[in-house]
Amino acid sequence: SDDGQHVVIRPLAYVKEAELARYAEIRNFPIIPCDLCGSQENLKRKEVKALLQEWDTRYPGSGDSMFAALSKVIPSHLLDRQLFDFQAFRNPES
Amino acid sequence: SDDGQHVVIRPLAYVKEAELARYAEIRNFPIIPCDLCGSQENLKRKEVKALLQEWDTRYPGSGDSMFAALSKVIPSHLLDRQLFDFQAFRNPES
Repeated sequence: SDDGQHVVIRPLAYVKEAELARYAEIRNFPIIPCDLCGSQENLKRKEVKALLQEWDTRYPGSGDSMFAALSKVIPSHLLDRQLFDFQAFRNPES
Repeated sequence: SDDGQHVVIRPLAYVKEAELARYAEIRNFPIIPCDLCGSQENLKRKEVKALLQEWDTRYPGSGDSMFAALSKVIPSHLLDRQLFDFQAFRNPES
């Protein structure tokens, strides 16, 4: 976390929720009700999820594209001056 | 560009289109028809623009949030192994 107190790991970040749900079904994993795991009310999270699903329905594959983009960041295409030194950048030809 | 042949600059990246349009009006800039400047048909660009506007209407401020996020990239929150060495990461406390 930002204060350095906790390390967040996301071991299932690469697994689609639908695939995970299906796997849990196949393996008959017991599904326990859970107050801590994100199934509780969280409006923003749900809104963003719904929006991403909507995009992917309208533009099939856009979810995969966004995911791929997170794995292949091109700092010079972003706007973070810490991450890419725009100021010092010079055309290699000049 | 990716092949290193061209350097793309975006001097107006920080200016909202609506503000720029208003400024051009105020200053009476001549508006010329243009085939090169993105006003031509470009379905993807238009779609993404419409979607971003839709988000910003539904969730006011989301456009600004996304823009701010581009300026403050947190590599450990993304999935790029080149940008952040997840493998080598250790909890500083351990």
